[in-house]
Amino acid sequence: MRQLALPQGFLFSACAAGIKASGKPDLALALAPDGASAAAVFTRNQVVAAPLIVGREHLALSKGRVRAVIVNAGNANCATGRPGLRAARKVCKDLARTIKAASKEIFPSSTGIIGVQLPFQKITTAIPALVAAAEPGSAGFEAFAHAIMTTDTHAKVAGQTIAYSGSSAAIAGVAKGAGMIHPNLATMLVYLFTDIEASPRELQAVLASAVDQSFNNVSIDGDTSTNDTVLLLASGASGIKLKSVREEFAAAVSSVCRSLASQIVADGEGVKHVVRLRIEQARTRDEGRRVAASIANSPLVKTAWAGADPNWGRILAAIGYSGVPIHQDRINIYLGDQQVCRKGAAYPFDEARAHAYMMEPVYDIRVVLGAGSESLEYFSCDLTAEYVRINADYST
Amino acid sequence: MRQLALPQGFLFSACAAGIKASGKPDLALALAPDGASAAAVFTRNQVVAAPLIVGREHLALSKGRVRAVIVNAGNANCATGRPGLRAARKVCKDLARTIKAASKEIFPSSTGIIGVQLPFQKITTAIPALVAAAEPGSAGFEAFAHAIMTTDTHAKVAGQTIAYSGSSAAIAGVAKGAGMIHPNLATMLVYLFTDIEASPRELQAVLASAVDQSFNNVSIDGDTSTNDTVLLLASGASGIKLKSVREEFAAAVSSVCRSLASQIVADGEGVKHVVRLRIEQARTRDEGRRVAASIANSPLVKTAWAGADPNWGRILAAIGYSGVPIHQDRINIYLGDQQVCRKGAAYPFDEARAHAYMMEPVYDIRVVLGAGSESLEYFSCDLTAEYVRINADYST
Repeated sequence: MRQLALPQGFLFSACAAGIKASGKPDLALALAPDGASAAAVFTRNQVVAAPLIVGREHLALSKGRVRAVIVNAGNANCATGRPGLRAARKVCKDLARTIKAASKEIFPSSTGIIGVQLPFQKITTAIPALVAAAEPGSAGFEAFAHAIMTTDTHAKVAGQTIAYSGSSAAIAGVAKGAGMIHPNLATMLVYLFTDIEASPRELQAVLASAVDQSFNNVSIDGDTSTNDTVLLLASGASGIKLKSVREEFAAAVSSVCRSLASQIVADGEGVKHVVRLRIEQARTRDEGRRVAASIANSPLVKTAWAGADPNWGRILAAIGYSGVPIHQDRINIYLGDQQVCRKGAAYPFDEARAHAYMMEPVYDIRVVLGAGSESLEYFSCDLTAEYVRINADYST
Repeated sequence: MRQLALPQGFLFSACAAGIKASGKPDLALALAPDGASAAAVFTRNQVVAAPLIVGREHLALSKGRVRAVIVNAGNANCATGRPGLRAARKVCKDLARTIKAASKEIFPSSTGIIGVQLPFQKITTAIPALVAAAEPGSAGFEAFAHAIMTTDTHAKVAGQTIAYSGSSAAIAGVAKGAGMIHPNLATMLVYLFTDIEASPRELQAVLASAVDQSFNNVSIDGDTSTNDTVLLLASGASGIKLKSVREEFAAAVSSVCRSLASQIVADGEGVKHVVRLRIEQARTRDEGRRVAASIANSPLVKTAWAGADPNWGRILAAIGYSGVPIHQDRINIYLGDQQVCRKGAAYPFDEARAHAYMMEPVYDIRVVLGAGSESLEYFSCDLTAEYVRINADYST
């Protein structure tokens, strides 16, 4: 794991609470002893897990003030009905009592199996030691990053620092990826910590924009989890006010988010190739995104990518059924620096070179729509037999 | 192939014109010597192939009167620009001259590779022998069914007869499936022949309703082809008027379409399980279909099906992101006769029995939304490593 500059005002720890059958770390804690301002973005899936309901409720009650974040892996606490809600509240209440905070200042997250009641006693039993172990250094932060993993093959972190008038502020982000394995359900969890000084409202604007440029432009398999959460916490400990460094801060948060987003795609289940899909000359940003999503979610396109097959016809067809009004005779498609489709029709290209280009682990495809002036970058990946193997694996 | 009662007033033939590199049959002809009324439904993909543009134009010009259908496999004549349009017109003109019809009475179809110019000379060279060989019996019909195949593993036909006042009319349908392989693009082609007597307008109403209950409720991989076509031709040779048997005829056409639709799904690339997805208590038919499509197109759901994994959580999540307003706490899900989710939450069930049930080649999943009173049946299938292998296969 890369060494990051960590923001002041936070303590981190993690442990194995016995939720994961494997015995691996599965419980992570972040403390803001003096409290932090918070902003959050949640899944758009209408089926939402209990911790999201509780987390939203707490942020509303506390007016965006958070003292602790507690995340468990191994159980998503989703589709668990009223007992699931009670379990999420119990965890928050218990942690609040331990750190002498109010329940509404606790932000809970869960990721893992769906439809199984959360063994909340395992969590409450672990809380005292977890709180005692919390520390501000990178060991605690790394432990946090590892404990939230499910099918991730490695921890995902990213960071930026901002200098201002002889002082500096840090942004450190940690994420777990959106890949899934039986019986887990895909969940993307992202936690961003900064010591900038900001109101929840200021943070929300920065976060919404950063998410729009990163996690909203990511597709592994097109499935949207019931637990997806992006949380941004600001301790204010740097003494630097957000409004003094607004532009730099927004750019830094956005950059951290884009780094985490591409790490998530690259670590998707069975992923062999990350495709940076650039949509240009869309009429609106939303239309560009719909075209990108249609391409990025097409099993035919994604299997062609798995085979390094420069089959631009499948891309053209996916544009055609995206639902966005198009002018076929204005569409140009490029694989790297080679044009493969011109004005919506075949264009002679060096197929062997295109195939070789698509063997790279990360490469670019550019789609020029000729409909307007909006551009968009979208992270996608191939669909491999390995993905199917992982997700079809079922042992009775 | 099953023996079908064939409608009077049609002649069929097929040959290998050399468009497929394999040398297999790739050109099919259906003649209606005395003409036939026609109705058609086309792909909603905005990228459409040249033969669809020409076919639509011809049906409009002839006011739904068809003398011949000519279908080639091995080349989709899509993304071929103006030369592609000229090639499709050339084929129609040539066939029209040979059978002494007008070009506008010829209906062309193509399926196969995209972005490569149609070798129309191979078709025009084959036309005289193809016309001479056309015959009304099942040998010709079977040859037609085989010649339109691309990655299909077997020919797909279905038929029904209607008795009326001592006489009878027949409906015979033939289809090729929506599976795809490099460098071909998925195409579903369906031709329905009947000797009922009907106007193009009457036929269109029957066809639209039948398609709505069959091909519109089918998903293999969610990709929509640029060449999808369903054509219904009525020769009138039975002497039975459509309006005399309206209900029976509509039911028969619908039944033929449902049979062909399920054959197409079952023969999808790499398909090991066909899932009959029944959506009940939807608010509207459209909402039911969107929920079904969201489930049927989820790679996570489809890979779980490949592994016979009773992972209802993935189904619930796919319902949640379908875009249809839902009430999670009213949703019930059944695998066969076992309930697995009740009021949007886990419901105890016999997992081993569910797993065994999902090992069947064809089985039922029922989703009860509790939102209204509309029901819908949708054909879907699993996503196997074999599908990926077929579609990722690329040889330079």
